Amino acid sequence: MTELFTVQTPSAAWAIFAEQFHPQVRSERIATTAALGRVLAEPLQSPQDLPDFKRATVDGYAVAALDTYGATPGLPAFLKVAGEVPMGEAAGFAIGPGEAALVHTGGMLPPGADAVVMIETTQQAGISAVEVFQPVAEGQGVVQIGEDIRRGEAVLAPGHRLRAQDIGGLLALGITEIGAAVAPVVGILSTGDEVVPPHQPLRPGQVRDVNSYTLAALATEAGGRAVCYGIFPDHRETLARAARRAWQECDLVVFSAGSSVSYRDMTAAVIDELGKPGVLVHGVSVKPGKPTLLAVCDGKAVFGLPGNPVSAMVIFDLFVLPALSALLGADRPRPSTVQARVARNIASDTGRVDFVQVRLEQRAGEWWAVPVLGRSNLIYTLVNAEGVFQISLDSTGIQAGEWVTVALYGGRGGPPGR
Amino acid sequence: MTELFTVQTPSAAWAIFAEQFHPQVRSERIATTAALGRVLAEPLQSPQDLPDFKRATVDGYAVAALDTYGATPGLPAFLKVAGEVPMGEAAGFAIGPGEAALVHTGGMLPPGADAVVMIETTQQAGISAVEVFQPVAEGQGVVQIGEDIRRGEAVLAPGHRLRAQDIGGLLALGITEIGAAVAPVVGILSTGDEVVPPHQPLRPGQVRDVNSYTLAALATEAGGRAVCYGIFPDHRETLARAARRAWQECDLVVFSAGSSVSYRDMTAAVIDELGKPGVLVHGVSVKPGKPTLLAVCDGKAVFGLPGNPVSAMVIFDLFVLPALSALLGADRPRPSTVQARVARNIASDTGRVDFVQVRLEQRAGEWWAVPVLGRSNLIYTLVNAEGVFQISLDSTGIQAGEWVTVALYGGRGGPPGR
Repeated sequence: MTELFTVQTPSAAWAIFAEQFHPQVRSERIATTAALGRVLAEPLQSPQDLPDFKRATVDGYAVAALDTYGATPGLPAFLKVAGEVPMGEAAGFAIGPGEAALVHTGGMLPPGADAVVMIETTQQAGISAVEVFQPVAEGQGVVQIGEDIRRGEAVLAPGHRLRAQDIGGLLALGITEIGAAVAPVVGILSTGDEVVPPHQPLRPGQVRDVNSYTLAALATEAGGRAVCYGIFPDHRETLARAARRAWQECDLVVFSAGSSVSYRDMTAAVIDELGKPGVLVHGVSVKPGKPTLLAVCDGKAVFGLPGNPVSAMVIFDLFVLPALSALLGADRPRPSTVQARVARNIASDTGRVDFVQVRLEQRAGEWWAVPVLGRSNLIYTLVNAEGVFQISLDSTGIQAGEWVTVALYGGRGGPPGR
Repeated sequence: MTELFTVQTPSAAWAIFAEQFHPQVRSERIATTAALGRVLAEPLQSPQDLPDFKRATVDGYAVAALDTYGATPGLPAFLKVAGEVPMGEAAGFAIGPGEAALVHTGGMLPPGADAVVMIETTQQAGISAVEVFQPVAEGQGVVQIGEDIRRGEAVLAPGHRLRAQDIGGLLALGITEIGAAVAPVVGILSTGDEVVPPHQPLRPGQVRDVNSYTLAALATEAGGRAVCYGIFPDHRETLARAARRAWQECDLVVFSAGSSVSYRDMTAAVIDELGKPGVLVHGVSVKPGKPTLLAVCDGKAVFGLPGNPVSAMVIFDLFVLPALSALLGADRPRPSTVQARVARNIASDTGRVDFVQVRLEQRAGEWWAVPVLGRSNLIYTLVNAEGVFQISLDSTGIQAGEWVTVALYGGRGGPPGR
């Protein structure tokens, strides 16, 4: 079967997969204070005007702007002080023509007032009067009712990943609970007779499981909940049993395939048995990452990822990440990127998208992308990389000095800005 | 006191603060599998060569390269097959001159072999011999011992924030536990007679606490653990008592100051009582964010942040975030940025750094930064923003069409790339 597979371009592969994958977003009620990074799963309208009263933006006197027109230091407006508005309370009194009320920043304007004169442009005149040296326009020194957000206005759209300020924005409206997308459960199965758990001492010829945990961390970062099902030897019935269990318990299943052809064939056969239509794509025209399986089995997304760590990460980003975003009903997380110049010539074949791992160096105020030397089967190729850029399908390569868009890996890398 | 304060530039303010702030990084042992996003607090050297045996990178025959020199389809090299190397095991036999061993991708080369010929360039010849149609060079088809990382080599440096691939890299070496920086505890106190908890119904003149939770989320995102101490009215002894408790229990304390002058004065006085040297900076030349207090009290960092939500976030990024990074011993997290053109003219005063909240729009393949209209005292100014850019101290403004570096807010925004 491996010999027969038709390699698809990344976009064609995704289109074939997406046509069969139509996940339902599941929602749960969570506290807004615990919603950082979660995906909103319901439309939200503002239940109120914010603010719901006219607020002073300065310390000073609430006035009718009309009463200050023409005021100058030489000819101040003379206003009677009707009282002071305590913070956090309604005024309890209105001001009439020729009157003012002492207010503090954030305080409520009394009825009759439509502006606030800053205290710096006034002078007390006796016990209960004030001189105003500068005119104010209507609305000056005031946040209007609904100026922050109006009652009934859309607050945030479903699919939005909540940031720190969004939590503040929701709580400002008294929205203390929201419907958030349930974290999709991502089942990860590793295969390979040579692969052992990381805590186990190595015998000659053995290697430790790297991909399970890297993929689990990537799934977590993307908003999923990862479950590692362990490492399975070259025994089809054992793998098939574990695959069935993972498929039942999880929303999405990822096989970290053994690197030999026999493993890839076995993985494809096991996936095909999980449900219809089964494996949709055998092989994608990317480097690294060609030996990739995309499948939908009775509605659930199943992926066979290459065994090479670098390939596995490239394919995760290309296909598993958008599938997870679909399960979350989320806008696909936009990566952080930086424009950089490539430090040396890199050849590429047309008909294939190349992913180049890079470090970033600043030279004379510009960012340069320095390709990380190291094969795609070495985990430290990834550890030493700060990001990755693509050489497109129709390109024969990149010349040193050309500008590329580097997608940065989480946590590090990228130019200092904020 | 407020009238007397000397406003500092952001860099001068940080220098004054940093001279007094010398935190100790505390470390704890954690499982590597749970270390995503944590900061490494110890130097790590590789305990082994990785791989620690010569691995085949293809399915084929392990050979001595010398034995294949000159081989062609017309005149193949004829080699005796000494055996098959099982996956995950040592060969158990060596190959001699004129011999080959069947190996699988990821398998161990037997002694005597220094290259692997791909199975596609061979043909079985009887039961225990093979014809090789192409020569291989020494090392071809092989990952050398230590090619991924060498024994004793530095794995990752202290201060590194662990990404998905770093977890894989550590586990590949059997490093299942690491020393990670303890999450600094960030105490947050809110002040204001008008401020009430988000779940409480509002009476006229009251507003809900927004900043405590926004700041808590920002602290969490930066790797801290946030503790909200509540909302304190305009009563100095009550605030002083809560401040003392927060200062004792936390590694860093943030006051979300009431917006009126009297609150700022009270906060400054309360901070000064916590320890020496106390308040170091009263006011920073940024817009928004001027009324800011930076303090060190007996070794602990204490900040008085402006009450306006936008100002509070700007000041958090400028000062609290780097202080948190110092507590973690971490490289300051680099933000994701995007180059964009400013959509309209923006005036600025020299002697002040302006922070402009923006949305991003793509126009003709370029990113444009569209300033968010809305005052700094409105939380939805931040909710509607995808990022922020700076207008420098010595600039009188930005012309429409000029390029700026926009620092993106987490979770959303920025150009699709990866």
